[in-house]
Amino acid sequence: MSASYAYLGPEGTFTEVALRTLPESATRELVPMVSVPAALDAVRSGEAEAAFVPIENSVEGGITTTLDELVAGEPLMIYREVLLSITFALLVRPGTALSDIKTVTAHPAAQPQVRNWLKNHLPDAVWESSASNADGARLVQEGRYDAAFAGEFAAARYGLEALETNIHDAENAQTRFVLVGRPARPAAPTGADKTSVVVWQRDDHPGTLRDLLGEFAVRGVNLMLLQSRPTGEGIGNYCFAIDAEGHISDRRVAETLMGLRRSCLKVRYLGSYPRAQVRAEDVRPLPPGTSDEEFVSAADWVARCQDGRF
Amino acid sequence: MSASYAYLGPEGTFTEVALRTLPESATRELVPMVSVPAALDAVRSGEAEAAFVPIENSVEGGITTTLDELVAGEPLMIYREVLLSITFALLVRPGTALSDIKTVTAHPAAQPQVRNWLKNHLPDAVWESSASNADGARLVQEGRYDAAFAGEFAAARYGLEALETNIHDAENAQTRFVLVGRPARPAAPTGADKTSVVVWQRDDHPGTLRDLLGEFAVRGVNLMLLQSRPTGEGIGNYCFAIDAEGHISDRRVAETLMGLRRSCLKVRYLGSYPRAQVRAEDVRPLPPGTSDEEFVSAADWVARCQDGRF
Amino acid sequence: MSASYAYLGPEGTFTEVALRTLPESATRELVPMVSVPAALDAVRSGEAEAAFVPIENSVEGGITTTLDELVAGEPLMIYREVLLSITFALLVRPGTALSDIKTVTAHPAAQPQVRNWLKNHLPDAVWESSASNADGARLVQEGRYDAAFAGEFAAARYGLEALETNIHDAENAQTRFVLVGRPARPAAPTGADKTSVVVWQRDDHPGTLRDLLGEFAVRGVNLMLLQSRPTGEGIGNYCFAIDAEGHISDRRVAETLMGLRRSCLKVRYLGSYPRAQVRAEDVRPLPPGTSDEEFVSAADWVARCQDGRF
Amino acid sequence: MSASYAYLGPEGTFTEVALRTLPESATRELVPMVSVPAALDAVRSGEAEAAFVPIENSVEGGITTTLDELVAGEPLMIYREVLLSITFALLVRPGTALSDIKTVTAHPAAQPQVRNWLKNHLPDAVWESSASNADGARLVQEGRYDAAFAGEFAAARYGLEALETNIHDAENAQTRFVLVGRPARPAAPTGADKTSVVVWQRDDHPGTLRDLLGEFAVRGVNLMLLQSRPTGEGIGNYCFAIDAEGHISDRRVAETLMGLRRSCLKVRYLGSYPRAQVRAEDVRPLPPGTSDEEFVSAADWVARCQDGRF
Repeated sequence: MSASYAYLGPEGTFTEVALRTLPESATRELVPMVSVPAALDAVRSGEAEAAFVPIENSVEGGITTTLDELVAGEPLMIYREVLLSITFALLVRPGTALSDIKTVTAHPAAQPQVRNWLKNHLPDAVWESSASNADGARLVQEGRYDAAFAGEFAAARYGLEALETNIHDAENAQTRFVLVGRPARPAAPTGADKTSVVVWQRDDHPGTLRDLLGEFAVRGVNLMLLQSRPTGEGIGNYCFAIDAEGHISDRRVAETLMGLRRSCLKVRYLGSYPRAQVRAEDVRPLPPGTSDEEFVSAADWVARCQDGRF
Repeated sequence: MSASYAYLGPEGTFTEVALRTLPESATRELVPMVSVPAALDAVRSGEAEAAFVPIENSVEGGITTTLDELVAGEPLMIYREVLLSITFALLVRPGTALSDIKTVTAHPAAQPQVRNWLKNHLPDAVWESSASNADGARLVQEGRYDAAFAGEFAAARYGLEALETNIHDAENAQTRFVLVGRPARPAAPTGADKTSVVVWQRDDHPGTLRDLLGEFAVRGVNLMLLQSRPTGEGIGNYCFAIDAEGHISDRRVAETLMGLRRSCLKVRYLGSYPRAQVRAEDVRPLPPGTSDEEFVSAADWVARCQDGRF
Repeated sequence: MSASYAYLGPEGTFTEVALRTLPESATRELVPMVSVPAALDAVRSGEAEAAFVPIENSVEGGITTTLDELVAGEPLMIYREVLLSITFALLVRPGTALSDIKTVTAHPAAQPQVRNWLKNHLPDAVWESSASNADGARLVQEGRYDAAFAGEFAAARYGLEALETNIHDAENAQTRFVLVGRPARPAAPTGADKTSVVVWQRDDHPGTLRDLLGEFAVRGVNLMLLQSRPTGEGIGNYCFAIDAEGHISDRRVAETLMGLRRSCLKVRYLGSYPRAQVRAEDVRPLPPGTSDEEFVSAADWVARCQDGRF
Repeated sequence: MSASYAYLGPEGTFTEVALRTLPESATRELVPMVSVPAALDAVRSGEAEAAFVPIENSVEGGITTTLDELVAGEPLMIYREVLLSITFALLVRPGTALSDIKTVTAHPAAQPQVRNWLKNHLPDAVWESSASNADGARLVQEGRYDAAFAGEFAAARYGLEALETNIHDAENAQTRFVLVGRPARPAAPTGADKTSVVVWQRDDHPGTLRDLLGEFAVRGVNLMLLQSRPTGEGIGNYCFAIDAEGHISDRRVAETLMGLRRSCLKVRYLGSYPRAQVRAEDVRPLPPGTSDEEFVSAADWVARCQDGRF
């Protein structure tokens, strides 16, 4: 069963839809798991080849369960990311009218994305959370609630129909998912890659975080995400989950990682992988002096200086 | 009813215990609310004088609901903070033995703090989340679950007894709560204060966050917390909730806030208030050149230079 | 005699030519002095209203005598600067041919600017230094040397003729002169000004100079010149003479000076004055957030936050 | 004659005294040259093995002639440095009393170091510069001047006697000399070394110099000297001569040099050599994370990450 992908279940959620956009998912058994930790444990134990879980949400921020699972425990690595636009449908049993709806349900993460819609269209409906959006749909099917917010794709599976579609409070609501596996050689660089690390600082004197960011800046490596997570050692103690542009095989990234490794208490490498949905205009030109050619040429120059040939 | 404090209810939770440590709570009506947004809305509408809500947890990190509510909507201000050590008791109906427990419940935030204990002592118990720890206790009283994790103080209220106390996976597990009101003059400086702001940057070119941190560093203002929160404008767009040492009436802090206001797209001031549980060794000496006296003396010198008298 | 300008003499040098480009020189008595210290002492003693001396040379760098005199002793202030392009003429007694020239003279500072020309045109001529270019011309008049390098304007005064003109090894050779007086209110800002200071750092731990530059950078103040000068306290002990864009009445400059005053051991203000020969393209737009309006508006915002009105 | 050392002559100056402190000078022919450029040209042409010249003076600052010669022309390298304390003797013909002295002479560089002494002891004496201190002594011997300031060691050579010794306006007046040769493998590291470079920046936007200093700071390399020198391309265009702690074979220094090479327009390596007169307390402990062991270990970690073995 090692050719399986575990994913945050149940079936019929956005996670499954996002996973199915990965071509390699077609050749794997896709196994829904009850939680992110369960999905990642399946990878750690060797039960699954990889796990597919949400990691960042444009409305809610970093998915802390996923971040905390990657930060601690046996090392895992990110191999792919998928971005999915999130809009909801209001699913009801066939024949239900908007005015019939007294109770609505969905996963708690859906709430901030439908709150305004609810206030405007169903101001008196009572909200109760369900374990997942798919589970909410199931509970509507069973008659426990009148309506569920879920992906429109879930309607068919549970014999429901979509009273409304394309519900989303925030424009551009997106969720980022990652495919996580056991450590191995990262995917080859594509020219538009991302590298993820977690960094614990030596101490928190003023300026420490600024020094840490200096390790990236001085090598021209652009930060894409910085998310603080508690270290569990008391209020005010944080580590940082960082996404940076570039691949560990890029010399500017490799030297930055070396700098982090030397200057920080601890660094955990979480992988280098292709950026999802990259448009040409998202790929910035490298700052002067930061290409691989320039790194090689500079190293060569220093070697010649060390030899007195220059 | 404006002399009331709204708080994240229900009664009998850690939030209420923390609130009661504030002397001023003795003279206010304390009103439990169903959610953080409800508590803050009560303040915004004038229904409550202030709201008392959790904002940071040493195990889970920033309480995103609270942060997001402070970041958006009508401005609010933090006036006080309280730190509370969090340990759980396992509450059961009198007569229940450990071996009788098949189902346990608590608020989802409790789970990471009791997970290891559960694995070791009740490996087969089924976990179901409840709306709050107090609500979990109530459900045990009603017989729906066999045991609830909650503060030991909740036992009496629900006619339960504590089978185990002092349960906590992480040492030093603490939650930080804040008392939030409508904007007004901040509390007077105490010499050990904290200032909270939210900052939106002009753009995200490499080094921007470092420049932002430079506004603090160049004036010798120490950062205590930096928490990124999504702006809601798509994956990768974040604002930063920042806690810094010092009070807005300290000149180094005022000049830093001016710098943020000038250099950032937007800054929201969230208040200056006394640090909770400050020990003498937590108060660092000011870096050279950053005291109010030195600011005043330097401003005086520049004024004399402008006048040609030096 | 206080309406006189002392200048680095003798008459007939580039310094006098530069001084005469200042309109106010027409209404002052211009008094040549034997040295930069003598000219500045005349100001300090009240004997002269101001002194006009060279301070920077595009070939030789900072004029250390002038810098050191401004750095130490009774404070003085710079009120004006003048840029003069430096090209030399080869002055000879009438009738002298190039092939007749066996000895040449000029002030030592002229040498690096005519060295290549000499090598190409008079490879065998013997160079001897004279106290000034004008003095060299006088010595040619007296027959002591065959030729002198000096400004073409000096020919008439000494009855010489220019065998060659426009001699200069380096393109764009320029000297910068300053008009120095006793401390008084600086000239009004013109929109294209420069502020000069000397800064002594508290100590020289790694990063100190970088921190000092941070005081400028964080307020968007551009550096135009940084020149280290020994403090006289042993090898490796330096202060820094700094020219920055902007006027002390600009708030970004005033706040920067305050920052220097607070964070450094000592700062000496040397004045704010109009930049010479500024072309439109030399005036950069201010970085976002650094205009006076933005400073005022940010200070106003902080004041409102301190009052709880925002 | 390639086993000779050229030095800034004439014989009997501080330069010769400093040179003779180098053990290797005992086995070389020591050849006085008329100027620093002449001494360095002798090395470039192969006529001399090395040249010994002053480069920094604690009273006057960087010796610009030497710096400019190293900055331009065929590359040279510094192999050794010598620090010499500079105090002057007042040399006179035997029998001369202080009251007999009407004229004094010395090299112009001596003037700032004896000015106060002169003002106090010989206020009416006329100063005239000579080509070197030794030449001044010779002119006293010949009767052209009454007294010369020079090293006490020069008295015997010219049949003079020292009326006063230990004359120095500034405490700790020192001159730093360097032994300069053609490029070759640098001297082996001693644990207390210095590396010299000249750096031309890509452009001079605000913050550029700060970025340059960041290349050193981020690798924990301490700056010992930063001296701006004009590039010859017009007022305001400067390159920087920099001395940093450490040896090019130290990994933190090598990576810093690579960074400069990549990010700057041009870098000239001037050598790595033992620091002179280092006392134990002058050698700072390396900042955490900057030792060779930590560089190697970090590089190894990155290699393992690239392979997926961590």
